[in-house]
This record gives sequence, C-alpha cells and structure tokens, in this order.
Amino acid sequence: MPVYRMTIEYDGTPFSGWQIQPGRPTVQGALEAALATALRRPVAVVGAGRTDAGVHARGQVAHFVADDLRMPVRRLLASLGGLLPDAVAVRDLSEAPDGFHARYDARVRRYRYYVTTGFRALDRHWRVPVRPAPDFERMQAAADLLVGQHDFDSFCRTQSETKNRVCTVYEARWLRESDEDACFDMAGNRFLHGMVRAVVGTLLETGRGQRPVEDMARLLACKDRRAAGSAAPARGLVLEEVRY
Amino acid sequence: MPVYRMTIEYDGTPFSGWQIQPGRPTVQGALEAALATALRRPVAVVGAGRTDAGVHARGQVAHFVADDLRMPVRRLLASLGGLLPDAVAVRDLSEAPDGFHARYDARVRRYRYYVTTGFRALDRHWRVPVRPAPDFERMQAAADLLVGQHDFDSFCRTQSETKNRVCTVYEARWLRESDEDACFDMAGNRFLHGMVRAVVGTLLETGRGQRPVEDMARLLACKDRRAAGSAAPARGLVLEEVRY
Repeated sequence: MPVYRMTIEYDGTPFSGWQIQPGRPTVQGALEAALATALRRPVAVVGAGRTDAGVHARGQVAHFVADDLRMPVRRLLASLGGLLPDAVAVRDLSEAPDGFHARYDARVRRYRYYVTTGFRALDRHWRVPVRPAPDFERMQAAADLLVGQHDFDSFCRTQSETKNRVCTVYEARWLRESDEDACFDMAGNRFLHGMVRAVVGTLLETGRGQRPVEDMARLLACKDRRAAGSAAPARGLVLEEVRY
Repeated sequence: MPVYRMTIEYDGTPFSGWQIQPGRPTVQGALEAALATALRRPVAVVGAGRTDAGVHARGQVAHFVADDLRMPVRRLLASLGGLLPDAVAVRDLSEAPDGFHARYDARVRRYRYYVTTGFRALDRHWRVPVRPAPDFERMQAAADLLVGQHDFDSFCRTQSETKNRVCTVYEARWLRESDEDACFDMAGNRFLHGMVRAVVGTLLETGRGQRPVEDMARLLACKDRRAAGSAAPARGLVLEEVRY
C-alpha cells in the first residue's frame, strides 16, 4: 500500500506531547482525527520523534499508510488545513518511496532551543528568558565536548525504556540571532527522552559559572542523571528538521 | 521633570489596541497600571503610535514623565517584567533628553506585515496565510508607486479625525523570508488610521490579478476609501521601529 510522508509544524503549548494518550490532546491524535475525517477511515500516523508535552516542531516528519486517497495529495493537504486545530499545520504531504518509515529511516534529527537575555512578548511561546545573560563562550566550550559518539545516560530521563543510550552528536552550537536572542542548535542521529532539555539546563548552569566547562566530559562519563543540570523548560524546544 | 523613554514589544492578540479605553484591556492601560504599581503613583504613558486592536509591536516607543524614580532604571525595568502581563514587555528603558515626546518627535515609523503562502502553526499569531500564492513581483511593482509624498485619503478609515492626510513613504518593499514566508516592509514619516492594512489588502488584490498594477496610482489620486482594497487582518501587522 502507498506510504505518505508529511512535514508537520506545531505549537506544543496546548498539547500533552506528540504521542496519543487517552483523554488528552496530542499532536498525533489531532493528525489521526483530521486524516480520519478527510479519508473517511481510521489512519495510523507514525512520527519521527515523540516530542514531550509543550515541545514544538517546525519540521516533524510522520508517515501513514493508505489505500487509494480518492483525491490528489494537494487537495488532501488543503483539507487538512481546514480540519486541524490552529496549533498544528501539515506543511507538506507527498507519496514516499515504498516502505518508507518516518522513525526507523531517520538519519539526522535537529533540535533548537531558543532563549533571550532580554524581555520579549511576541515569541514568548517558544523562547525562554535567561537573565542575567549567561556566558555564551563558556557554554559553547562545554557544548563542543558533546560532539561525537557518547553514552548520554546522564542526560536521559531515568524512567525511559531505552537500554542503548549511545548517541552520535554531529553539531552542538550556540547561534546568536541578535544582541538579545540566541538558540542552541543540536543535530544527532538520535535523541533520548528529555536529552536536549537536560543538555541545555546543564549548559545554562555552566554559562552562569555554577559548573566548570570540563564538567560536561565528567557527566558523559559518569552516567548518572542526577549529576547533570535540571531540565530547561519544554517551551523553548523546537524539533526543526528530520533528515533521511 | 525627567522624561523616560521605553521600547515596548507586545502581542496585540489579547488587547483592544494601544489606547486606553474604559473597561477594556489595552497596552497603554497595562503599562500605566504596571508603572503605577512600581512607582506607587499614577503615571501617564504616551506612545509613538496608536496601534489598532490585534496589531502587534516589536519596537513601539513611549515616554512618561516622573519625578524621582527612587530606584535605578535597570531595577524599574526588571520590576516591570514581573508586573506586566506576558503579552507586553518593556525591552528597554532609559532617561531621555529633556522635553522628549514619543509621538511628536518621531521621524520614521516602520511597520511590517507578515504573510505565508504555506501552512504554519508557530507564528500563527502574527503571520497571515495568503493562498494561493500572490504574484510578489506585481505586488512590488504596485508598492513602488507608494514611495514619496502622497495624500493617502483612499487608505484612511473614514471615521478618522485627521484632516491632513499627506504622508511621506520612504520604503515600501516585499521581503522574502523563505520559500513560503514574506513580509511587506513600509517606512514613513506618519501613518493614518488603518493605512498599512488597507495598503496590504490592496496589494494582495493586485497580486491575485484582481487589480492592475497602475491602480495604485489611481487610488492615491482619487481620495476615496471605498476604491481601495479591503483591509488585511490586524494580526499580521507589527510596528517594528520608531526613529527619532
């Protein structure tokens, strides 16, 4: 049966995360409901990554399998625009190569965590104030230690079911967007539950002088979640891109 | 008495515009209430421009006159952060030269109107979908006719009290932000009530082929609001900057 691939943007604020949970608003649930209405049959949606409650996406990728759509994909895309809540948008929809799987085939995932050292209002849903301003050079020096293949056990929520906690980080850099705004850009082959938020929380503690820069190397070695910093708030995090 | 100058960002969504109106949430009202709490006396706030209900700002400028603040301006700035609703932020606060007036002294105001030809979620509070995509080259050609000194009577809400409707437009250009996103950037010495939204509405009709490009010249000459296009929605408009 044909497989369809979607690129999805969402404001995570009103959702209890990506993954369907009974009785709670979820992004996956909203997509499955809209597709079921448009296609008049139940459709299962598989996403590349399960974002937590409050986390956003600009480039989440998901697939679904469906027999004859009975309409061109462009028309389905437009009807989803009318059926989905405002906080979710399917940006792109196309037929994928046979056997495409949004989660298993993903090679690179990119997250960004948005902060401001100033006072902001328009972007407040996805940009977190960090005041006083942390030392971005220190935070970059600590972030440099993340690049490469490491066991990220210290940055994984303990209740997670995953046993293999080895991830390869391709990029980990702070980008200055303006005098006041910056984001932490992190690309890797996979991310554990709560990993980016734990990394950003640890970097912010480093940037405030509460940890030495070399602490990052120690944390990667010690494999103890309690040793890392507290998680940065969910609302600053955006899944930007998934590559195949 | 010392005059203080503020740069203000706000999400216009929850407000009935800038200007104080009894019994309604307004940006000016929120600022005066926060300042009155911080300074323990009533304070009148004067803005550079009165934005309509639903219109946003990243760089609104306002002033207030106050005797001894009894605290450093940096501390007042920080306490306003705690006293204001989330949708309003004072980005900057400083003592201004004697006699500074936010409205009368403003030389250039810059607005941007944000659109997308795609499906978006994260920026939906301040970016308006325009589908199918209008012809941006046609819209730029029509916008070129706006630059210079003209009577903008055709683009002013009729109930406005202003008699002199001559404005000088310094810039009027469409900026492509990405494949799907664009904004209309307009700078001038002054703007009439509803002017940018009427201009953008007219440009969009031009971009959809509903008006010839030269219509813009005819509209500037005919001085009849009914001849121009319908106003684009308030939520796409942002007051970006005021220069002195």
